[in-house]
Amino acid sequence: MSDGVEWAIHCCTVLAVLPEGDALPAARLAEFHKVPPAYLAKHLQALTGAGITRSVPGPRGGFALARPAAAVSLLDIALAVDGSQTAFRCSEIRQRGPAASAAPGAYRRPCGIARAMWRAEDAWRRELAATSVADVLTELVATVAPEQLLAGTEWIQEVQTRRRSRT
Amino acid sequence: MSDGVEWAIHCCTVLAVLPEGDALPAARLAEFHKVPPAYLAKHLQALTGAGITRSVPGPRGGFALARPAAAVSLLDIALAVDGSQTAFRCSEIRQRGPAASAAPGAYRRPCGIARAMWRAEDAWRRELAATSVADVLTELVATVAPEQLLAGTEWIQEVQTRRRSRT
Repeated sequence: MSDGVEWAIHCCTVLAVLPEGDALPAARLAEFHKVPPAYLAKHLQALTGAGITRSVPGPRGGFALARPAAAVSLLDIALAVDGSQTAFRCSEIRQRGPAASAAPGAYRRPCGIARAMWRAEDAWRRELAATSVADVLTELVATVAPEQLLAGTEWIQEVQTRRRSRT
Repeated sequence: MSDGVEWAIHCCTVLAVLPEGDALPAARLAEFHKVPPAYLAKHLQALTGAGITRSVPGPRGGFALARPAAAVSLLDIALAVDGSQTAFRCSEIRQRGPAASAAPGAYRRPCGIARAMWRAEDAWRRELAATSVADVLTELVATVAPEQLLAGTEWIQEVQTRRRSRT
């Protein structure tokens, strides 16, 4: 799994606390998390492509969640950033070598090994689909020290105040 | 996930049908699956290191399962080949940037995002732990065309007969 999944979930959690109508530029999100802006921008574009975030144009623009935080699952984010292909790829090695069959339809049914591996990935997906950005945020608010939450929200407010004063 | 996991599960399934005391060399397992012998040997060594297969010395030697096929799970194989680290790696980006806390113990509890991602990996592991090589073999025997099973077992028997005649 790429680092981008971690960054993207953190970014969506920050975007979830923005007041309705607000947006944050990729550069500010990168600054907040101290991650390389160019890489982060690529992941934010992937999120936008998947309909998780939206790109707001203009001097007060940036990125915002495209739907309520409760409607964005960790699975949505992971698939948007890393792609929806399975981690286990079946290269059909059963069709090679001395035991391979030339009979038509011999390999119609997917390989049992691949099916077992994909059942496990389904379990992974179900678990991530059941956790939303709103869940992450709720848990964060319940467990993080109040002064840290304050530091985060104050930084965001300062950034937005500075941007408003310029426009 | 590496191709090695697929190859290793297929190899263990073949080793599971060998008569007690028999072994197959890495080169024959590579031939059976038409995969690069050097890479496969590396994965078989990883399986042996994890106590899944054992290396049998001598002219009739090779690899054999080190324990009953029912006692080898797909999780055992996946972790032996790909390592036991989680797919999601938490780089603790919460500890960076303007909202980071310098308070002692502020980050004692693992990040909620990492915990959610690891819960999903636990679900993946549970599913793979519940499927054994014996399960895969049972399902294979029940679903694969009889002539294909025959081709596989005949090839193995021929290989073993040839090796015995040489010693």
